[in-house]
Amino acid sequence: MTDSLPITNRSRLRRSHPRGHFDRETINAILDAQPLCSVGYVMEGKPYVTPTLQWREGNHAYWHGSSASQALRAGRDAEVCLSVSILDGFVLARSGFHHSVNSRSVTLFGTAFKVEDPVEKLAKLTRFVNGLFPGRYADLRPDTAQDLKATTLLGLKIEEGSAKIRSGGPNDEEADYALPIWAGVIPVQTEIGAPIPDPRNLDGVAMPEHVREFKLGSAYGKKQE
Amino acid sequence: MTDSLPITNRSRLRRSHPRGHFDRETINAILDAQPLCSVGYVMEGKPYVTPTLQWREGNHAYWHGSSASQALRAGRDAEVCLSVSILDGFVLARSGFHHSVNSRSVTLFGTAFKVEDPVEKLAKLTRFVNGLFPGRYADLRPDTAQDLKATTLLGLKIEEGSAKIRSGGPNDEEADYALPIWAGVIPVQTEIGAPIPDPRNLDGVAMPEHVREFKLGSAYGKKQE
Ligand SMILES: Cc1cc2nc3c(=O)[nH]c(=O)nc-3n(C[C@H](O)[C@H](O)[C@H](O)COP(=O)(O)OP(=O)(O)OC[C@H]3O[C@@H](n4cnc5c(N)ncnc54)[C@H](O)[C@@H]3O)c2cc1C
Ligand SMILES: Cc1cc2nc3c(=O)[nH]c(=O)nc-3n(C[C@H](O)[C@H](O)[C@H](O)COP(=O)(O)OP(=O)(O)OC[C@H]3O[C@@H](n4cnc5c(N)ncnc54)[C@H](O)[C@@H]3O)c2cc1C
Ligand code: HEM
Ligand code: HEM
Repeated sequence: MTDSLPITNRSRLRRSHPRGHFDRETINAILDAQPLCSVGYVMEGKPYVTPTLQWREGNHAYWHGSSASQALRAGRDAEVCLSVSILDGFVLARSGFHHSVNSRSVTLFGTAFKVEDPVEKLAKLTRFVNGLFPGRYADLRPDTAQDLKATTLLGLKIEEGSAKIRSGGPNDEEADYALPIWAGVIPVQTEIGAPIPDPRNLDGVAMPEHVREFKLGSAYGKKQE
Repeated sequence: MTDSLPITNRSRLRRSHPRGHFDRETINAILDAQPLCSVGYVMEGKPYVTPTLQWREGNHAYWHGSSASQALRAGRDAEVCLSVSILDGFVLARSGFHHSVNSRSVTLFGTAFKVEDPVEKLAKLTRFVNGLFPGRYADLRPDTAQDLKATTLLGLKIEEGSAKIRSGGPNDEEADYALPIWAGVIPVQTEIGAPIPDPRNLDGVAMPEHVREFKLGSAYGKKQE
């Protein structure tokens, strides 16, 4: 319940530290809410950032792509920094300086590893598909051995990192509350649109529940753990 | 009009290269559409990624924060990678392998510089505020010299990088179109919620147009250039 990551020199928040969180519950909730992440890695001493999709299973985060991918090859057995960030709103204050955003973010550090075992790899990819779209994998044309071979799966143990959360209205200087300036929050949300069926869907193929009821983060949060 | 960035060894797309774009018009449109970015930098040989807000003026991108910030101090006069990514939808195919996302992203590389001149710094910060909320800066309590001193502004010349765009439905194996599997796209959008006035706003202070009509990317795209 109060399972927390240790606070290391690298993960300790120095700015706005009261907004920092190290408990797994908070970190996991943010990872589960937003599959889009940015993976940072170093090649020849220089920084690279690649947007990709992550998913969580227990105390690990995973991501996937081509076995020929630069990002996956450079990340394997090397230090990475995985960042997830969700913009929840703009905070409008009475001075420019006190403007901010409401947000939830996670930063993870560690050495990424490659999932080599083909059975484990398929199980994890199945979980990736079903985590987004509960039950979908069983409906699909099975992936071929060749496709699986072309796929690299990297994992990162969630053992060093932090979450940071800001919510609520502006924090202005006390004197500024007397000024006739509109302050407040403009909320920002992610909205799921009406599904667009492929024109080549066969007649009579109904839209499955995992499409009709699609919600970001729903499967991980509610149905699988 | 056809002003494009050179394709360098670092910015050339090796995966899905037909989705790559190097013209400034495409790159600028993505930067202007999404202020949230991830800045990658290297400290002691290790990768760090920090979510932050970027804004564009002409051929430069800028971001700001505390003069004491680790990310801004490590990024200054050093190589950074700035990544903006927008998730536009989930692409559901007839096999797991062909699932994808629709998205727009930009990756920029270069050496970040600090904007030292106080007049230029204030002008850029004013543009940051007005870029999000047209006309707002003039309504605010002016920022103090002390607040400006506590603020560091980094810039990056947009001269090496790339955009990548995927749109449309799934691309399945020809044989798989005969299968009775629902395929298509689940669109994902960013939605702006109803503004929440600060309970401490003075009576009679009306909600300004830049709040009522707030749109992401509107000011940069339409009103300022
Ligand atoms: C929202 C989103 C989700 C994604 N999810 C996944 C995923 O789950 N799995 C996956 O494999 N890929 C995903 N991608 C694509 C991913 O960002 C990479 O483009 C892809 O993985 C190829 O990586 P690479 O390192 O082999 O690229 P390469 O093509 O070798 O990269 C070479 C250069 O191309 C440019 N480049 C590469 N990718 C991008 C980009 N996205 N935008 C702009 N320039 C780029 C950069 O300059 C880079 O240095 C996603 C992208 C987005 C925007
Ligand atoms: C959507 C969004 C927009 C933001 N916009 C801005 C902006 O415009 N300007 C600005 O200054 N800051 C912004 N931030 C905050 C920014 O991410 C940093 O937290 C802040 O700039 C302090 O940076 P630092 O390098 O000094 O952090 P430090 O506190 O020195 O970082 C030390 C360690 O704390 C942890 N940490 C730091 N930041 C985060 C984080 N965001 N999430 C999880 N762990 C973290 C990491 O483990 C990091 O290694 C934004 C954050 C989000 C999520
Ligand atoms: C819902 C599930 C999935 C989603 C949302 C997804 C998403 C993506 C995305 C966005 C890319 C990047 C494409 C690009 O570079 O433009 C990608 C690449 C890739 N995916 Fe997936 N994927 C999913 C499932 C799978 C599965 C199950 C497999 C393996 C069986 C797989 C194998 C690959 C491979 C090999 C690539 C690299 C393609 C290339 O660059 O040639 N994916 N995926
Ligand atoms: C619309 C305009 C602005 C927005 C949306 C914005 C947003 C932010 C955000 C999200 C942070 C990070 C807070 C955190 O670490 O939790 C931040 C930090 C900061 N901003 Fe801004 N900002 C804006 C304008 C300004 C201006 C005009 C100034 C200077 C006059 C400024 C100075 C700073 C400073 C100094 C910090 C560091 C605070 C600290 O860590 O102590 N900002 N800003």
